[in-house]
Amino acid sequence: MSLSPERTVSELRELLELTGDENGAQRVAWTETWERARAWLREKVAPTGAEHEIDEAGNQWFTLRGESERALLIGGHMDSVPNGGWLDGCLDVLAGVEVLRRIAEAGTPPLTVRLVDWADEEGARFGRSLFGSSAAAGSMRDQDELRERRDAEGIALPDALAEHGVDLDRALEARRQLADAAAYLELHIEQGPVLESLDLPLGVVLGTFGVERHLVTWSGQAAHAGSTPMDQRRDALAGAAKLALEIRPIATEVGDGAVCTSGSVVCRPGIVTSVVETAEQLLDQRHLDAAKLAQLLELAREASERFAREEDVEVEWERIWSIQPIPFDDRLIELADEAAREVAGASQRLPSGPLHDAAEVARAGIPTVMLFVQSLRGLSHTKLEDTKEEHLGLSVQALDRLTTKALEAFA
Amino acid sequence: MSLSPERTVSELRELLELTGDENGAQRVAWTETWERARAWLREKVAPTGAEHEIDEAGNQWFTLRGESERALLIGGHMDSVPNGGWLDGCLDVLAGVEVLRRIAEAGTPPLTVRLVDWADEEGARFGRSLFGSSAAAGSMRDQDELRERRDAEGIALPDALAEHGVDLDRALEARRQLADAAAYLELHIEQGPVLESLDLPLGVVLGTFGVERHLVTWSGQAAHAGSTPMDQRRDALAGAAKLALEIRPIATEVGDGAVCTSGSVVCRPGIVTSVVETAEQLLDQRHLDAAKLAQLLELAREASERFAREEDVEVEWERIWSIQPIPFDDRLIELADEAAREVAGASQRLPSGPLHDAAEVARAGIPTVMLFVQSLRGLSHTKLEDTKEEHLGLSVQALDRLTTKALEAFA
Repeated sequence: MSLSPERTVSELRELLELTGDENGAQRVAWTETWERARAWLREKVAPTGAEHEIDEAGNQWFTLRGESERALLIGGHMDSVPNGGWLDGCLDVLAGVEVLRRIAEAGTPPLTVRLVDWADEEGARFGRSLFGSSAAAGSMRDQDELRERRDAEGIALPDALAEHGVDLDRALEARRQLADAAAYLELHIEQGPVLESLDLPLGVVLGTFGVERHLVTWSGQAAHAGSTPMDQRRDALAGAAKLALEIRPIATEVGDGAVCTSGSVVCRPGIVTSVVETAEQLLDQRHLDAAKLAQLLELAREASERFAREEDVEVEWERIWSIQPIPFDDRLIELADEAAREVAGASQRLPSGPLHDAAEVARAGIPTVMLFVQSLRGLSHTKLEDTKEEHLGLSVQALDRLTTKALEAFA
Repeated sequence: MSLSPERTVSELRELLELTGDENGAQRVAWTETWERARAWLREKVAPTGAEHEIDEAGNQWFTLRGESERALLIGGHMDSVPNGGWLDGCLDVLAGVEVLRRIAEAGTPPLTVRLVDWADEEGARFGRSLFGSSAAAGSMRDQDELRERRDAEGIALPDALAEHGVDLDRALEARRQLADAAAYLELHIEQGPVLESLDLPLGVVLGTFGVERHLVTWSGQAAHAGSTPMDQRRDALAGAAKLALEIRPIATEVGDGAVCTSGSVVCRPGIVTSVVETAEQLLDQRHLDAAKLAQLLELAREASERFAREEDVEVEWERIWSIQPIPFDDRLIELADEAAREVAGASQRLPSGPLHDAAEVARAGIPTVMLFVQSLRGLSHTKLEDTKEEHLGLSVQALDRLTTKALEAFA
């Protein structure tokens, strides 16, 4: 077997050299640098004999015909955020290239094997992430809104896409790509601290979190910090402070990996001599289980109403965004767990906080799983993003094992 | 006796008509409108025969010679903030005018009686409050810094003052004005909710609060809201939230009117998808007793260090500003209490949160007291500032009674 994880690491470095600078990776989707990376990818895959195609949403596909039309998909994305890391997205693709090489060398696989480089996972230029995968999954429902989007220079999204051969009006035709899909596999860096804290190189992703995101506005009464006795205050910050602390026992109570974050509190008038009249608090709650996510939200709402009464202030909730949890496939989770244990001696099942292209594929009903490899210090979306070379090697091996197992299981 | 509190109310309305607009009072110090108010004041006082003088700091004095050179001072300020209320500062002066009229009519007083209209109490144009009174008290120590100050239009403070006949270099010569001062009286609106909440028209001020003002900076670790388990977070906002709540039991513990305010928390990066890395919290603590003020600060510091340990974050304190408490004169507090009770049937002793010219006079060692009259809804520095006419009338009567008592006591 010709699998060479070392080659993947060296190709990752080559790609960074080609498409990065002193501030990190610069493969923002719908730019020249991104196109350069995609052309470079084509050269790397060409020797395998895989057929090449770019679909209506800009996704780049490499297809090794198998004994069946039914296809095992392996995916990732070549695009990065500006000043990004050297692994996010492209590790997935380059590990897939290595697996494709091994399979091509071994002869005709039982299923067709397809490697996909999804277009614009990050949404860095137009603020719309998972562009290509949501088109292929058929879940892209914001085309009217996307037509109006502009980048920082004022260039409209449809114009930028057209420069790269993509017609927004036809993007959903990419749905045909999933018609024969039997299963979908994706390897990604964890982008969090769990595996590092457990001293484990590899993990298996149970699915992507459902998210409830709210702006919680507390309204009290501005009052002079010197002339207003403590018992005559209606302090909006007190409500926000209580909620910022209470979301933690609520997460513990609901359990099973629940996370809740208060990322900001903006105080008005926000001056040293006044009791806070208005506190605008951002709240983000996530869970892998829809019922438990609803419970997180309900408990936080109840607590906020109790705090509002205690503090004689008002509280209002406004939903900013939400998404249902997307569980991955049980059978593939088992196989991924086996693969990780065979390669690294241990595995860990964990949810994914960030969304990934895999979530879009899973929403489309395709059995899906992801492998995570340890991130150092949990950092990503920065040039400081890193993973030990030894762990990168194990991750390529694990993806290869998982591919073999999936080809057997779904044949 | 000719005391006419109704006249004071009608003169307050006349002044607002002359120097206000639809947004409120516009008597900002060192402006034409302010000069117009001061000229109008001179006309009002002229019939009493009091001698007029403007000192080196721009303070305007009206002197009724008595049997002794030693002087009882009554003070206030004609200047207002932009879009100010109809009472802040000028009630004090116009009530004083009414008392001066009554005394002038009654013949030669046992002590010389002087009414002072302090220059630039509010500091609205150059951000330097208590200008004239601090010069007279000799506590003005920032002349070098004041020379560099500019208003919003870029006009230097010394140039603006020179236009109104004041030479900054000579301002401290106004100290001579307090040489013969036996006592100082000032009536002011409360600018807080205490008297209204007690349903009392009048109160006696025990002194002005000492203030400790700090920027408390909490430093944790930014981390992805989705991928970072709750037990692996170092959340800077958690420290700030705990302190925002803890200052309240600390104020209760220290007691005696202690007030503590967290007026703002600025979160960085301040986005919904990240645990807060840095929280910059403003803290204002006030007490009338220096030892208790120090205790407030010490308890808050100790609590913050405990919270920093609990949350595995760092905390740093930076003092922004502080001032010692300035207690008023016990004997005058008694007399003021008697005067308020005689006029209104009840009185309430309370500290002043905001600073006043009276605090500067007290710092200079002159026995000092203030009377407060109820503010509706605690509002000031806005055109919504208001006090019931009936209460304004009582306040003029109380200042007159207090003046009589002080003339007897200090003769």
